[in-house]
Amino acid sequence: MPWAKGPRERIRLLEGLLSERRLEGAVISGKKEVYYFTGFMSWRLLLPTYLFLRSGREPVLFTGLTDAALASQTFGGRIEVYENYKLEERMVAYPGYVASESEKFIRDYFAGATAIGADSWNLPHSLYAALQRSIPNVEVADISQDILAMRTIKHEDELELISKSCELADKAYAMARSLVTPGRTEVEIYSEIHKELSRLVGTFQYFAGDFVSGERTVAVGGPPTSRVVKEGEPFIFDLWVTTKEYWSDTCRTYVVGGKAEEGLRKLHSIVLKAMEAGIQMLKAGATGAQVYRSIHSVFKDAGYAEFFPHHAGHGIGLDGQEPPFFIPRSSDVLKPNMVVTLEPGLYVPGVGGVRVENDFLITEEGPKQLTKATMSL
Amino acid sequence: MPWAKGPRERIRLLEGLLSERRLEGAVISGKKEVYYFTGFMSWRLLLPTYLFLRSGREPVLFTGLTDAALASQTFGGRIEVYENYKLEERMVAYPGYVASESEKFIRDYFAGATAIGADSWNLPHSLYAALQRSIPNVEVADISQDILAMRTIKHEDELELISKSCELADKAYAMARSLVTPGRTEVEIYSEIHKELSRLVGTFQYFAGDFVSGERTVAVGGPPTSRVVKEGEPFIFDLWVTTKEYWSDTCRTYVVGGKAEEGLRKLHSIVLKAMEAGIQMLKAGATGAQVYRSIHSVFKDAGYAEFFPHHAGHGIGLDGQEPPFFIPRSSDVLKPNMVVTLEPGLYVPGVGGVRVENDFLITEEGPKQLTKATMSL
Repeated sequence: MPWAKGPRERIRLLEGLLSERRLEGAVISGKKEVYYFTGFMSWRLLLPTYLFLRSGREPVLFTGLTDAALASQTFGGRIEVYENYKLEERMVAYPGYVASESEKFIRDYFAGATAIGADSWNLPHSLYAALQRSIPNVEVADISQDILAMRTIKHEDELELISKSCELADKAYAMARSLVTPGRTEVEIYSEIHKELSRLVGTFQYFAGDFVSGERTVAVGGPPTSRVVKEGEPFIFDLWVTTKEYWSDTCRTYVVGGKAEEGLRKLHSIVLKAMEAGIQMLKAGATGAQVYRSIHSVFKDAGYAEFFPHHAGHGIGLDGQEPPFFIPRSSDVLKPNMVVTLEPGLYVPGVGGVRVENDFLITEEGPKQLTKATMSL
Repeated sequence: MPWAKGPRERIRLLEGLLSERRLEGAVISGKKEVYYFTGFMSWRLLLPTYLFLRSGREPVLFTGLTDAALASQTFGGRIEVYENYKLEERMVAYPGYVASESEKFIRDYFAGATAIGADSWNLPHSLYAALQRSIPNVEVADISQDILAMRTIKHEDELELISKSCELADKAYAMARSLVTPGRTEVEIYSEIHKELSRLVGTFQYFAGDFVSGERTVAVGGPPTSRVVKEGEPFIFDLWVTTKEYWSDTCRTYVVGGKAEEGLRKLHSIVLKAMEAGIQMLKAGATGAQVYRSIHSVFKDAGYAEFFPHHAGHGIGLDGQEPPFFIPRSSDVLKPNMVVTLEPGLYVPGVGGVRVENDFLITEEGPKQLTKATMSL
């Protein structure tokens, strides 16, 4: 069986973590966590999938029979299956059934283990109970936080998917810019962009975000509505585009009809200055608090600090917002191969809201900007 | 505070269940289960929300501060909050943090309890551990199956949402039919329908399904691709439309260009006959197996049984497939206020696939068909 490079590397990291924490194995149950270590996520309704790893043994993916072939395209370990669809008697697999089905396997595989790790934030109690029945004396240590930390450093395959999402977002902005003309509704503009992205990728495309115009921009964000946009108004497009679960998170503010009034132009130029200051701070070793302050101080110096109510950015990956967080007291430290966003914004009643957000790969040589659509209004 | 009728009714049912099972309270943690009993589901990233119910006391929703106002629009019990977004130090709330934050509250609220219920299929181990720390001697009984059974009988508010989803699907079919012309791709047809549905609802609209044409129809289903459709080919549209998480699940088969050849027409007429036979069996008291057989026997009599590889339908609600299941050995029993689908289909290599699916409300007076788009090819 093939074994995709990314999942294999990440399984090795997991083995290292277990060894470091003196654990004899792990049970991984979160949907994204299983995907992270195996490259496999089911698109079917109700198909729980778990990864079992006993140190020194072949890792085992426990999934539904109908998805085994797909799973084996990325995961080279052993695949054990349960019958998720059996016309005679079963159409869907609930976690309780899957946990029961896993018991016999767990009993052999983890025989004699006394301490294993699990992503306890996600671990369903049904599976925990199955573990307790099958390995009576085992202690389950929480490794959720370790996995979350591991996830902040991106592997090559992950960077490819994030870059793809960033490219799609850039293409969406080219459309967005030409669509913000008077008379259209927010939802029409959103749905035209969605249509174009779907065509580009050739199938379903996950895609959401903030689509707010006019006075709605002062509230920072929100889903599109039937509000008709008017000449000269700002329109905030905060696009969340994913490729195989890997996010890009980007923002542009455009002006309906293309001609911005003085008030908006001033906000926009301060926001761009804050973006520039943030980029200067995107270096390995900087803390989340330092990155936040680099942006906040531009707003403060311009006398606009009170109009910047939110964080200055964050990591992206399998979650749209993950560590490092760019907030005042964040001690998260930037490291090479993290992917982060910067999102300075100002929201002034009577004038409007302006936000710009870009995605960056942190490298030893400084930040590499992944989103390139024009930032002009 | 207001208390929406549906959630209030369902909380009462939950109280009845606890009393029947001699349990002193419940901890509900599944996203859909919390929504079912409170009317509230968060759209934010990483905002775990739990329902705590001690028999004889006011139920308590434990959620993030930023969503408390929204939750109070449907849930009239007490709302306890944790700080999910606090600019200084926190942007997202992970289940481990939320479980820890809940401990103090749980300790008082469940003080002295010895047996409570939980939807253990979903219950995160982090919350279970918090329960064990806060109420040391409590036993947690699994009520997942009871809640699943409860969910099969729909309340008035749920029927409204399902009906709305069915109406949207009907509108989508009107579009789909006019769009299946030669030269278009599957994904173009999908994305045009998505655009129109988004406009109709005036914001994001969850919408997926099977979009397969030509020889792809023989494989039953799949997502849309860039395949160009050709005159005379079948196109299977299995549309999954939801309204506030409540599903419709419907299917039509149309012919590209509108003119079906004899082979397809024959399959289609047998499928319609099977649909008719299934409808005759949709009566309170019938079993899932009987419903399956009513459809299967039409295919068998026509000599096509081997070309019907799947189930004959299922319940819908918060899940796209839920009990009752229409499969050979199903002992699920039809009851008034269940909502179910029938989906006879035939897939013949060299000819093509044809499937039709409608949604029905079971009543004492027989089935009420909720999906009305034309079934002709």
